[in-house]
Amino acid sequence: MKQKRFILSESEIPTKWYNIQADMPTKPMLPLNPATHEPLTAEDLAHIFSQECAKQELDTENAWIDIPDEVLDKYRYYRATPLVRAYALEEALGTPAHIYFKNESVNPLGSHKINSALPQCYYCKVEGTTNVTTETGAGQWGAALSYAASVYGLSAAVYQVKISMQQKPYRSSIMRTFGAAVTGSPSMSTRAGKDIITREPMHPGSLGTAISEAIELATTTPHCKYTLGSVLNHVALHQTIIGLEAEKQMAMAGEYPDTVIACFGGGSNFGGLAFPFMRHNILDGKTTEFLAAEPESCPKLTRGKFEYDFGDEAGYTPLLPMYTLGHDFKPANIHAGGLRYHGAGVIVSQLIKDGMMKGVDIPQLESFEAGMLFARTEGIIPAPESCHAIAAAVRKAKECIATGEEKVILFNLSGHGLIDMTAYESFINGDLQNYKLTDDEIARNLKDVPKL
Amino acid sequence: MKQKRFILSESEIPTKWYNIQADMPTKPMLPLNPATHEPLTAEDLAHIFSQECAKQELDTENAWIDIPDEVLDKYRYYRATPLVRAYALEEALGTPAHIYFKNESVNPLGSHKINSALPQCYYCKVEGTTNVTTETGAGQWGAALSYAASVYGLSAAVYQVKISMQQKPYRSSIMRTFGAAVTGSPSMSTRAGKDIITREPMHPGSLGTAISEAIELATTTPHCKYTLGSVLNHVALHQTIIGLEAEKQMAMAGEYPDTVIACFGGGSNFGGLAFPFMRHNILDGKTTEFLAAEPESCPKLTRGKFEYDFGDEAGYTPLLPMYTLGHDFKPANIHAGGLRYHGAGVIVSQLIKDGMMKGVDIPQLESFEAGMLFARTEGIIPAPESCHAIAAAVRKAKECIATGEEKVILFNLSGHGLIDMTAYESFINGDLQNYKLTDDEIARNLKDVPKL
Repeated sequence: MKQKRFILSESEIPTKWYNIQADMPTKPMLPLNPATHEPLTAEDLAHIFSQECAKQELDTENAWIDIPDEVLDKYRYYRATPLVRAYALEEALGTPAHIYFKNESVNPLGSHKINSALPQCYYCKVEGTTNVTTETGAGQWGAALSYAASVYGLSAAVYQVKISMQQKPYRSSIMRTFGAAVTGSPSMSTRAGKDIITREPMHPGSLGTAISEAIELATTTPHCKYTLGSVLNHVALHQTIIGLEAEKQMAMAGEYPDTVIACFGGGSNFGGLAFPFMRHNILDGKTTEFLAAEPESCPKLTRGKFEYDFGDEAGYTPLLPMYTLGHDFKPANIHAGGLRYHGAGVIVSQLIKDGMMKGVDIPQLESFEAGMLFARTEGIIPAPESCHAIAAAVRKAKECIATGEEKVILFNLSGHGLIDMTAYESFINGDLQNYKLTDDEIARNLKDVPKL
Repeated sequence: MKQKRFILSESEIPTKWYNIQADMPTKPMLPLNPATHEPLTAEDLAHIFSQECAKQELDTENAWIDIPDEVLDKYRYYRATPLVRAYALEEALGTPAHIYFKNESVNPLGSHKINSALPQCYYCKVEGTTNVTTETGAGQWGAALSYAASVYGLSAAVYQVKISMQQKPYRSSIMRTFGAAVTGSPSMSTRAGKDIITREPMHPGSLGTAISEAIELATTTPHCKYTLGSVLNHVALHQTIIGLEAEKQMAMAGEYPDTVIACFGGGSNFGGLAFPFMRHNILDGKTTEFLAAEPESCPKLTRGKFEYDFGDEAGYTPLLPMYTLGHDFKPANIHAGGLRYHGAGVIVSQLIKDGMMKGVDIPQLESFEAGMLFARTEGIIPAPESCHAIAAAVRKAKECIATGEEKVILFNLSGHGLIDMTAYESFINGDLQNYKLTDDEIARNLKDVPKL
């Protein structure tokens, strides 16, 4: 019988994260103070983030960062996650490709987000912080952060994108189950929120609006730090536990990926899976292809511009060098809430610029077709975000039918979609559509990117 | 660092199920033809069920039944599930007890139900059946059956308890994602449903009504068999994969359970975990205690009567010797939909009669308090059904605080509650209540049990 799942024992769980910044041929450009345009230091960042995360954010020296014992101890509640060979999907496609996926959907709360929520809250706790705040889109990050905060005895306040909150009410209930206070963004509880609502009363919210509100709360509340579920370097760092495990598990399977794929919102699950493998492209001459699957309706990697831009709608964050659609870009109300973000993380943006990876854009309908096929073959209903990775993997596997190549494809199943069933229901009923942007629409929105 | 999770490799997954009927000191009494009161044969049962399941149902000879390779192959997509030592829960309780749980919530679709859905559909397929039908309460079984049917290319029709369908709309979407046709029960699509609605237009449905409708569909449709998610012996047989794995995993942990606990609706997850351990009470002189946790509002084990009764509302099933509250018992609309069933399985009923296990009844509020504590400590939001097992385990662990005993408690986390967040939301908002039945209410309902 063919082995389907490759499992690590607790003693094989990696004890260090991998910091790709130390190995990148071109180091990422530095975040800038928006007023002075001076590069920011770790001390500057520590006004918003925990000191340790601020330090990790700018660390271009150390390739390996120790995972604190107290975090490893919590990782062991659910890690390592399985690496699965998707035989049933291969068979349904009739492809000679070997398709593997890393199954982060079995994590508590159903996605990879907890991998960074735990260390972020841990660092806050040891540094004496009592309150944490954050933004969340579909709610995967907010749920993970709420749980992690409760684990370390912190009080959590979450701003959730208003449209996602309406689409996925169960996720706010999950956050409340862990004791978090949840507010729909834009809200009237912050100055940033009030300004946005005044400009546009029916604003559906975006990760950009929610980040503005959370940062405002963090900077105006004593003993309160901001935490982020994606985009930033330290978040991708924590997520490399995924790829480091996958590397060992692919070795158990006796294979090495030709193509590594993950869906892309801000880059946390992508970087988490990809960076440990990309290390071997940089250092050992491997030639693995890296694909970040983004929604066609929010195509920053494939059609955005590399510029210094804000990470949030109101312009509270540092200026970040990134592929962006403009910080006030309002993506269509697709169901993949976690991918509705205007910019890419700094590391990934540099890697794209250097040709070390690329984006692929996936129409919404294609993403759900792939998700339905995956559900019926592998038995797991994927998150709408993860459906984008599956769709990119299916495209690749179909290319192999034409060429006859037995390529090894590895993708990240970043989460399950059991809380997203209204999305599937709409797809089954034929109520979903694609949202392709015109070049004009993209150019018009990019006008708001600040000129340095 | 203390080991939390005990994992089996694929080669260690059991290849046989355990049939406790072969080892029981008192064999279960036989199901009877309701018209003639004659004992039923496997041929009689095969009018409704697959031949293999009908045979397994009455098999009191063979203690070990081979799991077909094609089923094992599918089990390997998600099994073995982890055995977890619940250190965080122990610490929160301050108990000297060692608490372990078998985590069936990481199964595809979020519960243990798939363990029997796969073999039932597999047998139907090899016997030439093209259509399967079933009942479902909360929808865990219906979702599993829908997936298993799609795996083996069968068409599935599911009758879902109407009140559960309204409480948990996502579960019907899951079934539809796998291509199943879903109907709320009681419905106007069957004679049984029409009769029930005529008698009581606002009937909220129960497993009893849904079973009646599904059996009617199976017996009036060519090439269509009925499948059941609990109650029957062959279902518990398939679920013993849980306990057989747990036995190996407890040995890895160097412990053996003093108490084994599972929630109880019809007995599938209970029997699945308990029977392999009970074998050692019967054969090897072990003295493990077995507790089946039922809702206070549906207390067939603790306050029901041992009688021959129907398994469904309309009286289509054979007469089964079981602890029952009467086949037309209408349980309160608690959120643990899977536990709203009037009767216990035949094997469990005999075991209770023989003093080899016992029931404990759990009030709804106590179940959710335990579930919230478990979520906040172990990070997994449990299904409302599983909350009953957790509550029973918490009671036991608290006894150990008083006595100072380091008892080893093992319970089954039969599923997660991510689709049941409206229930948690109601609990958090203080909108839930307990439903304790008076002795008169129970006696009144038992009057309808048929007199032999």
